Parts: sequence; structure tokens; C-alpha cells
Amino acid sequence: MARRAAGGGEFALIEALRRRAGEPGPPWSVGIGDDAAVLRPRTGHDLVWTADALVEDVHFRWATSDAASLGAKCLAASLSDLAAMGASPLGCLLSLAVPSDRDPRLPGFWRGLLAAARRSGCPLVGGDTVRAPSWLLSLSALGQVPRGRALRRAGAKPGDRILVTGWLGASALGLALLERGVEGEPGASSFVRRHQRPEPPWQAGARLLRTGHATAAIDVSDGLGQDLGHLLRESGVAADLELERLPLARGALGLCERHGLDPLALAYGGGEDYELLFCVRKTAPEAALFSKRLRCPVAEIGRIRRGRGLQLTRGGRAVAAPSGGFEHFKRP
Amino acid sequence: MARRAAGGGEFALIEALRRRAGEPGPPWSVGIGDDAAVLRPRTGHDLVWTADALVEDVHFRWATSDAASLGAKCLAASLSDLAAMGASPLGCLLSLAVPSDRDPRLPGFWRGLLAAARRSGCPLVGGDTVRAPSWLLSLSALGQVPRGRALRRAGAKPGDRILVTGWLGASALGLALLERGVEGEPGASSFVRRHQRPEPPWQAGARLLRTGHATAAIDVSDGLGQDLGHLLRESGVAADLELERLPLARGALGLCERHGLDPLALAYGGGEDYELLFCVRKTAPEAALFSKRLRCPVAEIGRIRRGRGLQLTRGGRAVAAPSGGFEHFKRP
Repeated sequence: MARRAAGGGEFALIEALRRRAGEPGPPWSVGIGDDAAVLRPRTGHDLVWTADALVEDVHFRWATSDAASLGAKCLAASLSDLAAMGASPLGCLLSLAVPSDRDPRLPGFWRGLLAAARRSGCPLVGGDTVRAPSWLLSLSALGQVPRGRALRRAGAKPGDRILVTGWLGASALGLALLERGVEGEPGASSFVRRHQRPEPPWQAGARLLRTGHATAAIDVSDGLGQDLGHLLRESGVAADLELERLPLARGALGLCERHGLDPLALAYGGGEDYELLFCVRKTAPEAALFSKRLRCPVAEIGRIRRGRGLQLTRGGRAVAAPSGGFEHFKRP
Repeated sequence: MARRAAGGGEFALIEALRRRAGEPGPPWSVGIGDDAAVLRPRTGHDLVWTADALVEDVHFRWATSDAASLGAKCLAASLSDLAAMGASPLGCLLSLAVPSDRDPRLPGFWRGLLAAARRSGCPLVGGDTVRAPSWLLSLSALGQVPRGRALRRAGAKPGDRILVTGWLGASALGLALLERGVEGEPGASSFVRRHQRPEPPWQAGARLLRTGHATAAIDVSDGLGQDLGHLLRESGVAADLELERLPLARGALGLCERHGLDPLALAYGGGEDYELLFCVRKTAPEAALFSKRLRCPVAEIGRIRRGRGLQLTRGGRAVAAPSGGFEHFKRP
């Protein structure tokens, strides 16, 4: 680990990173600079483990990303996965592939990643740096959850209510504004930031777990429609989703109108929101109480029922899934 | 995790993999198909965590690799890291970047990886598949080691003896034969196999730990000279290495002579041997006893002393590090 480097400056690069990252401290007894990192697990807890990759020109473009934001973003995807299991982060490993170890974006990238790691209590404890034709980041993260309590995608039952944290479609709106070159418009910057440097509610998962009310959870990373679909399949149930209840961030409607974007299409299909979608029993408290306990906005958006598939309604009437109005990276 | 896929067949791909990989079983309570994998750590043990990446045309070329071997090889690098810490493998996550989810090499790749994972008791418990211009594999592995007992690079003391498992330079010789197109020659196949499908002595690390004699360890993945250098730096010591004691596989000398290769240069500088290099006190048993306990060949190759750096000797005389005679992937 942490040896094969992008070029000649291998040892220097790892040493510099080790100094900047610092010793991770407990529960880590070994961090960067050995063959592997060593963790002392906390008694009575399970470990939760995930990995996510970001590829240049597939998941991000340098035209719409800066290096420091990218560093933060590659951690965000994994923090979001951990939160969706009800886990608290413990640490991360990064495999970084770059064209050259003298790439001028590297210092900014490390700064962004290390700052995000500090903010979220998820220290970088190792990894490796390799040479590749373009940038590719693969980040793996470990978290912990009280034994046997990990939140699953399976577990939703007919009658359960569907809730979601934060706002949906904000990252996709930010990307659409960037792609249109109108990121300087009034009100645009918060959406651009949501796209470039998402801050998943990484503590919300563990807080949700402590309420004891969640029956199933998943993070909204590929888009509400897709991710809710995964949860439904794993739980073997269907759902009704009320499109007008999807939480839109303040200012989204005006920007969408000005640029011919469909805010509900963004909220339903736009990826990288990194919000937490979860189900609770019919008799569980109202969304407002979850908002208080999770310390972030929480909206109720639909209901689980028997069957298969996802039925969307708008004003009480069944409608097809909204589409268009935002851009994803297309296949060539 | 395990969601963003290389193309349209995302869900089908993950489902197929989940069926093929099977449920990992204890200590895993969740494997492929949720937001993250979940592990119940064994009481009294620390967790050891590593990640390694392999990049097309940097770490491997399709001209000299087949997909099934590559699947096995990407696990080998991490198993080797775990062994170097004295750990036993628990499971792995793979981030796989490929140009298309219909790449005809994918089935062979999965077959090779899953077979290697079964053989080594290191099940694939998750990961993700993304689209990228060329193949890139980033594998992360977790292992366990009795609490506080992980073998470190630091720990070697003046007077310690230096030992190594198996044979050195065999993988580099295999690559050289492939590059020369002479892989069909008598005796070549075992070296080609060592290059394409290394089988690190993944149980040797835990067995070495149980002897109680190791003071420091590292795996030989970048080449003996480089890896021993890391161990010396971390331990703050110097070493004398006797080149004629480097263990060469049977048949290596003849092949090297026939093709103008320097066997000692291969053994000293060739990477990807994935053998275990370790130090023991002067008073520890002979190499033969370690060979018996570790159940693999073990050779004594040098001695730790005060100071800095690595002194090579040949026939009792100080010599410069051997170089040339084999090919590494060059920087463009």
C-alpha cells in the first residue's frame, strides 16, 4: 500500500502526505506509511465498509470542477454510503490515479480532501498513488454502527412512510447552471457549490438510527427515482411518490424557470444530492420531529405499499416520471 | 456503493455478480447489494486495511495478460500487504473502471477474481463499477491480526537477520520472457505464470507472527531493493545484503543466460514477487525452521546494522546495485 507512485517522486509524495495528514490517532494504531493501516474496533460495534470511484470526464470535468472541491467530493460519496447504513465514519483510504505526480492540481486536491476528512472525523489512513492517462479517484471508507443495527435497503413494509433529508435536485441544478456558463447569476452559487462540493448529512444516519424508527434507508446519489427503486426492490414492495412534495431548495424554482429547466425532473432524476432517504412506520412521529433529531430538513414524500414499482402522482393524479431538463454525462 | 455502473446494464451486472460471489457469510452480515458491507469484528483482534490499484498500460498490458489472471492478480497485491502485517484476510471491495460494461474480458476477469477470493478466504463483499477510458482496478482488502500484534516496517534492530520467502525475480523474468515473445520455451511457463498470476504466500504472514520472532516485515512488491529500503528507513537502520544468497527459482539461471538477462538484477530490482521480507533477532532459529513453520521456502539474505542505507556484497566484496537486464513499464 501507498507505494507505487505516479512518477519518480514516490517516496517524497507519500512522506509529504503523511506529514500533512498527521497521525490519525485512536482507534487507528497505524496510518499512512506502512503496508496497511491498523484499526482497533470498538467493542459492541459492527464495521461498515464502502468504496466509490470518480472518473475524469465521466463523473467530473475539470471545466466545471476545481481540485479542492474534487478532493472533498470524493469523500462525500462514501460518507453518504456510511450514513445510509446508520454508521459513523472512522477513516478512509484513497487510490489516486493521475497522469503525473507533478500535476499542478494535486496540492489543491489534497488540501480539499484532508480538510473534508478532518471536518467529518474520517481521517485519511493510507492508499496508493498510481499513474494513469487521466484522473481517477477510488475512495474506500470504514465506519462503525452498534452491533446488528446497520440500516438496510431491505426492511420497508407496506404502510411505511417515505422521508428524505435536505433538498433534491440542487446538485443537478448546479451542474446545469455550470454547463450553461451562468454560474455567476444571482442565487446560482449555492447550487454550484452543492454540485462541486456536496456536504452529505453524514451524521444524520447515526442520528436516525438512534431514533429507532427507521425500517430501511439508502442515500440519494444516483437520483431519487433510481435509488428509491433499489430500496423498493430490496424490500420487495412498491411505493407512491407525491412529486409536489419533493423538497426543492429556496431559489431553485426561479432559476429553473429562467433557464427552461424542470425542477421536478431535477429533483426526481438528478444525481449526487447525497441526501438520506428512509422509511418509517405509519405510527412514527411526523417529519418535523425527525428534522429536529437529525438536525437537518426532513420532508415526507410518499408511502410504501404492496406490489412492485414506483407510482408517481402530481396533484393526486398518476403521472409518468419527469425527464429531461438537466444534463447527465452521456455515454459516447 | 456498487451502483454507478459502466453503462446501462448496471443493475443486471451487480445482480449477476452478487449471485456469482454468493453471500460472504460470517463475519460478514451484509455483502454485495446494499449501500455498504457490514463486518462483525472478532473480539481481541485489530483490523488491517489496505488498497492497491492496477492501471492498464502502466501496471499491466493486455498483450501480456489475460483477464482471469488479472482478476487474480489484483487481489494478490492486497493479500501480500495483509500478509506483511501478519494479518489473515477477511474480505475485499473492488472499484472497477472499464470502457464498457459489455467488455468481452469482464466474465473472465470476474471468474479469476472470484476464484482467487475463494482460495484465499477473502470474499468480494462489494464495490462499484464505473466507466473510464481504459481499465483500472482498485482493490481494497481487510484482514485481522491479534490485538496489538501487527507486524510493522519499523522494528528492525542492528544485528537482526534478514530473511525472505520464496524466490525473487521470478515475476520480472516471466515478464521479460513475455516481452521477448519466448514464453513457449521449455521452462518459461512457470515464470510467466508467476508474473501473470502471482500467488503471494498469504498465510505466511500470520504464521510468521505466531513464531513470535519477527521484528519487522514488508512485502516485496516493488522490488527487493526498494522495499528493503522502506523497511530500513522506517526502522532507522542500515543493512548488508549478500547478492549471492538471493533465492532464485530453479531454471532461472539457464533462461537468463539464454536471453542475456542478469538474474541478480531481476532478483534485486524486479517487482511483483509478492514475497514476504522479514527480520528476526540474531538468536532466532535458522531459516530452515522458518521455512517449516511458514510452509514455504525461506532464505537468509543479509543483516541489519547501525547507520543508513543498503550495502550490497558479492563474494564478500562491496558492489553497486545491479541494474538493467529486465524491463519495467517506462514513463512516456
